[in-house]
This record gives sequence, C-alpha cells and structure tokens, in this order.
Amino acid sequence: MSEVIASYLVHNVRNLEKKAEGIALGLTVGSWTDLPQLEQQQLKKHKGRVVSVQALGEERTKGIIQIAYPAANFSPDLPAILTTTFGKLSLDGEIKLLNLEFSAELATHFKGPKFGIEGIRKWTGVQDRPFVMSIFKGILGKDLSFLLNQLEQQARGGVDFVKDDEILFDNDLTPFEERITKGREVLEKVYSETGHRTRYAVNLTGRTFDLREKAKRATELGADMLLFNVYAYGLDTLHSLAEDREITVPIMAHPAVSGAFTPSPQYGLSNQLALGKLLRFAGADFSLFPSPYGSVALEKSETLQIVESLTKPDYVKPTLPVPSAGIHPGMVPQLIEDFGIDSVINAGGGVHGHPAGSAAGGKAFRQAVDATLSKKTLSDAAQTNEELQQALELWGDKVR
Amino acid sequence: MSEVIASYLVHNVRNLEKKAEGIALGLTVGSWTDLPQLEQQQLKKHKGRVVSVQALGEERTKGIIQIAYPAANFSPDLPAILTTTFGKLSLDGEIKLLNLEFSAELATHFKGPKFGIEGIRKWTGVQDRPFVMSIFKGILGKDLSFLLNQLEQQARGGVDFVKDDEILFDNDLTPFEERITKGREVLEKVYSETGHRTRYAVNLTGRTFDLREKAKRATELGADMLLFNVYAYGLDTLHSLAEDREITVPIMAHPAVSGAFTPSPQYGLSNQLALGKLLRFAGADFSLFPSPYGSVALEKSETLQIVESLTKPDYVKPTLPVPSAGIHPGMVPQLIEDFGIDSVINAGGGVHGHPAGSAAGGKAFRQAVDATLSKKTLSDAAQTNEELQQALELWGDKVR
Ligand SMILES: [Mg+2]
Ligand SMILES: [Mg+2]
Repeated sequence: MSEVIASYLVHNVRNLEKKAEGIALGLTVGSWTDLPQLEQQQLKKHKGRVVSVQALGEERTKGIIQIAYPAANFSPDLPAILTTTFGKLSLDGEIKLLNLEFSAELATHFKGPKFGIEGIRKWTGVQDRPFVMSIFKGILGKDLSFLLNQLEQQARGGVDFVKDDEILFDNDLTPFEERITKGREVLEKVYSETGHRTRYAVNLTGRTFDLREKAKRATELGADMLLFNVYAYGLDTLHSLAEDREITVPIMAHPAVSGAFTPSPQYGLSNQLALGKLLRFAGADFSLFPSPYGSVALEKSETLQIVESLTKPDYVKPTLPVPSAGIHPGMVPQLIEDFGIDSVINAGGGVHGHPAGSAAGGKAFRQAVDATLSKKTLSDAAQTNEELQQALELWGDKVR
Repeated sequence: MSEVIASYLVHNVRNLEKKAEGIALGLTVGSWTDLPQLEQQQLKKHKGRVVSVQALGEERTKGIIQIAYPAANFSPDLPAILTTTFGKLSLDGEIKLLNLEFSAELATHFKGPKFGIEGIRKWTGVQDRPFVMSIFKGILGKDLSFLLNQLEQQARGGVDFVKDDEILFDNDLTPFEERITKGREVLEKVYSETGHRTRYAVNLTGRTFDLREKAKRATELGADMLLFNVYAYGLDTLHSLAEDREITVPIMAHPAVSGAFTPSPQYGLSNQLALGKLLRFAGADFSLFPSPYGSVALEKSETLQIVESLTKPDYVKPTLPVPSAGIHPGMVPQLIEDFGIDSVINAGGGVHGHPAGSAAGGKAFRQAVDATLSKKTLSDAAQTNEELQQALELWGDKVR
C-alpha cells in the first residue's frame, strides 16, 4: 500500500503502546474498535498503523514510535504530508519528528534534485575531489562594483562556487538582475584569462508567488545557480521550483530559520529530516548545514546523519552536502575525512580573512585539497604553496 | 527610520551585552569599530542597533535582548524579515524569537486581515456575542453525502461557522469543488428553513503555486471562507492570498505544524508571535490556537498573550481568536470570562458527542452562550433548554 511512515521521538509518555495507537487512529480514522463492521470495511484503507514501538530507557516513558499513514489520506505534496504526520500532533506534548519514509508509489511524486552530485560533476567538470565554495562577505550596504570585485577575487582563487549571503535581498545597490548579468561578465573574464570557471549562486528572494517567474528570468539572464532560503518560505515552494522544467539551474538550499525547529531534543524535526531527506526530496541540489567545527555548530554525529540522508541510495538523486561555518584551509584533511570527496568545502572568513586577500584564500583551499588527495601533509605542501603557508600560519592546521 | 525590532529570549549566554552587540552587527554590517570613517558613513543606515538588554535572574546568563534591523537591509516581505531576524541566528545557540515590532513605514506593506472582527460581524450580522464554530468529525474515508449530512446537522444546531478538518485534502470522495457547491446548497436550504445561516470554511490545500487560482475558483464557486494550514506552507503564502483582491473571503489560519517551533522555552518562536502577530500581519481573519483546557493545551497566560497580539490596537485590523480543543457547552462561561465576546467558541467532540446528535450539540452551545450573556447560570438555563441540560449531564458545567 502506498503510505508514509513517520518516526517520532517521544518523551514523558505514560504508555508508549497506547500513545502509538492513539496517534495511528487519532490522526486518521479517529476510532476503530467501536466502529461497526461495515464502517471498518469502508475505512480500512484509511486507517493508520503502528509499525513499531521502541522504548528508550527502563522507565519506558521515552521511545521511538513509527506510524504508517495511508497515502489515500492525503494529496502527494509536502504540505499535506507534513500536516498529516505532524500537523496537530506537533502540538501534542513532547514529540519530535525524526524521519519520514515514502513508499515507492508516493516517492514517484518527488523528482528530487535536477542535477544531483553526478550532474553537478558533469556540469562543472570537477571530478575526484570535493568542491570548494566561498561566500560573499560584508556586501550589505555596498554597491555593485564592490560586489563584482569581491566576486572576481573569489573566482581568481579557483573556488568552484560562490554564493550570495543569504541576507542579501533585492536592493537598489546590488539588484538581482545586475548581480546575475554583471556577475556573469566577471566570471567569463576570469575564465578567459585563467581557464577556471567559477559558478555563482544568486539569492532568490521576494514574494512567494513571484519566485517562479523570477527564477525563470534568472535562468534566461544566465544565472548559474539559485540560493534559496527554503525554510523562510516552505518546502513545497522549493519542490515546485526544483521540478519546473524551465528553471534549468541547480538550487542550493540554505538552512536559515531551520534552527527554530531542529535543536530541541523534545520538539520539532530532526536535522537529518529537515536539512537532509526533505530537502533532497524537495529537489535541492545542495544542502548547507552547520558544520561540527564552527561557533554555530552541530554534533558531528548529527552532521553525518544529514549527509547519509542526502547521499545514500534512495528514490531520488543525491544532494551535495555543504557543511558550513568555522572552516579554514588547515581543516581540509579533517573535512575530507569526515565528509568524503562528494561534498563542498565552504568558507567565508576562511577565504576573505586570508592575509593576502580573498583570491589567496581560495588558492589556499585548493592547495589544501590537492595536498590531502595526494596524501601529503599540509605542512609539506605549504613548502611550495605560499597561500597555504600563510593560511596555516594564521589559522593553524588543526580543527579549532 | 524604518526598521523591525526583534525581541529574543536567550539562555546560557556569558555576556548579554556582548551577545546583543554581536547580533546587531553580525546580522547586519558584520563589524563596526574597526571600519574606516568613510565606510562607517556608508554603512550607517544598514547597521543593526541594540535597543535593550534585560537580564533575567542574578546570574545574568538568561535575558531578553532587543535588536533593531534597518528596513534598508531587506525587502518588505516576511521571508526576508524572518531570514534577517532569525535566519542564521536561529541556529546560534539557545535563542527564541519572542516578538517583532514593525515601524509605521514597514507596516504599510502589510494590509492585515481583509475583514477583521468588525468585518466578520458585519458580514454575518452576529453582534454582541462570541461566535460559535464546529468542526467536521470523522470525515476521512467518508463520501460526500456523509459530509453534507454532517454539515446540515451542524447548521441546524445554529453554529455560525463550520470548518473542514485540517487533514482533509483534495480527494475523490469529497472533492474540493463539490464540498463548496453542494455544501452551499445545504446551507442555503437550512437558511431558507430556519433563518439561520452557517458559513463553511473549506480547506485550501495542494501545491503552493496553485493556491491562488484555487482560492479564486473557490470564491467564484461560492465558498464562504478558506481554512489554511499556513505553517505547512509559509507565512508569505498566507500574506499573498490574503492581500489578493480577487480572493474576497475570510481566511482562517490553522496552527498545524506550529508545534514544531513554539513549545521549547529555548528555541523557536513564541506562540504570541507565531499564532498571534505574524498571522494577523499576514492577513488571517481567524487564528486557531490550542485552548488552555484540552489535552492539547497551552498555558492560559500564553493563550491570553496570543489574543492580545491578535486584537490590541495595531497597524492592521484585529484577527478573531479561536481557542480550540477540549471545549464543551459547560465551559462557555469560563470561555467568555477568559476570551471575551470577540472570540470564537470552537468545538468538535463537544458538538458531535452530544447525546442527541450534532444539531443538539450546536444548540447546547448557543443556549450556553445566551445564558451566560444574560447572566444566568447554566444550570438555571438548562431548566428550559433541553439540549443544554443533556450536555451538562454528560460533560458537567465546569472546566475539566
Ligand atoms: Mg551569511
Ligand atoms: Mg482536526
């Protein structure tokens, strides 16, 4: 049967089995044992089902409950799925939504990332190494020439991707369309001079109902990629943008606002679901999430669960993991060890804070990646790589 | 200066003043004191400002911080405002967004509820008493005739509003358009027979980018009102629907999914903001929220804060408060004492569980309202009101 199986972590529950049964019925057909035979027959395909109940701890007041909801109960879209599995239930005591498993039939309604990791590798020609990305820094209040200069510096450093700051919205100083067209000119110039092509993710912002046309227009104007604050809008908006055939560029999902509903152990959604599976099924080609290293950090185990959710074999293509924050070139060996080569090494301060400037910052990252993949230590590689040398002097070569 | 002032509750902070300064700069211009004079001049109108810092407790590790963000930094829409005030910041430790105050200029971008409480009173002709609403019960898996029969029973009970279950999506048994058109026929019939007109809020569901056309079509077909699971979509979607001139009906916001980000003391958004102010500014005419009485309950103080936020004088019209869950006719005096007459008394089980059926359930509520407003006790009124009598026998006349 087509269905979604939701896994919940519950706390302070008197009877786990009863709680599970209450959810399975309460959020579907309401009641069961007291229904006449005929009505049971009629409602059978709408009845929720307890899949499993697992107590955590001897007191059995905490546990993981899995409930299957028949797809007959909802339309195959994320708002309906979220409302069914965690609508009223989110308000009912200490309950956290850990995971959603879609049946094969239900999964057909989700095309997932347009590109996926393979598609991004094919598009960029970057193989056998992690990607390197840098983020604009201090753009708010600055004009277009400042932005373009910073873009050029980043591109000259050899990074693969540059993304807008997520708090850069439509504004008179650096208008959306000019960021795209002038940014493209800059990147073409650097390419013609260096042979290296950097791609720029422009922040898609504004009113929800304008986003589709705006994204198409961005594509027409030559935008490489779109950055999107998915949780300031809604997952279905990402889903709709990603599945639109005329929006032909990769979409990078930013975790802004997700901290409102992920950090509590008792409430909300797991990071694995919010920044992993749901973004993948909604069609994000990239998912940014807090790295385990910065001041805004997640536990490493949690970041690895996100990555697993983004990349393990599933009904849809994998999404590129982008652990973010607190990253400098000295951490590259650690990053590759933790996240593998199918990931993006993403830095802001670790690029722009380089003593010799942003271009040098990007170079230091690329040098650190090359060194690590050819099994050299960073200090060895630094002997012949000035930018890496300077980075290591400033930031060290260990995870802070 | 046009701006938004955000209030945050923070826990486990070493230095509240430093934290506040870090937010004000970090989420706007990045740094300040080390900037050259010229750049300070340039960036002045983009710089965030610490409005106040209030320690809670002697240890000063907990407190309320207010930060003003210049409107020059964002486009005047809710996704940009949320991303600015609680985007990356939501991921940065124990921080909860308590409130957002819009300056007068910024507020002009938000028209608020189309009807407001006065508009709803004018439209319905219901004055000087709380409204009474009932919710469909056990509709999942049932056909249209079942739904229409339940609608008729509810209307015959004299309730003002009937709302769809929030988990009723587009489906073959009770299709959206038929719920509207056939539902209207039923309600017209009851009106022609009884002189009482009940209004029906149909659940607006489906893909985000289809909602506007679907809402217009619903209006054309004669829908009275729209129910909307705003947090399964996004606040801006509600905002766009509410401000659309061709969507001429009131919108009722359901709190589904909001429990993902409201209950934690450390994280997320306050209920006052999520189910109060933001829904009002986004244009909801009704806001449903957990009552203090049911099994899914909020603290009474929290519900009163929601109501204050929905109804106090502000830049936009007030939104009708709908405390929901755990409500039976015996609680009406308490409800009116707690929430006043500018509110909706909303019940599901308290209507359909009436011993004499759903119509009797509605009547019992209306009798309880009339009694309370004419300063009679419910037991006195029950002498001459059979339905109320039966309700009191079953549920008692006290808040459970
Ligand atoms: Mg940023
Ligand atoms: Mg319901």
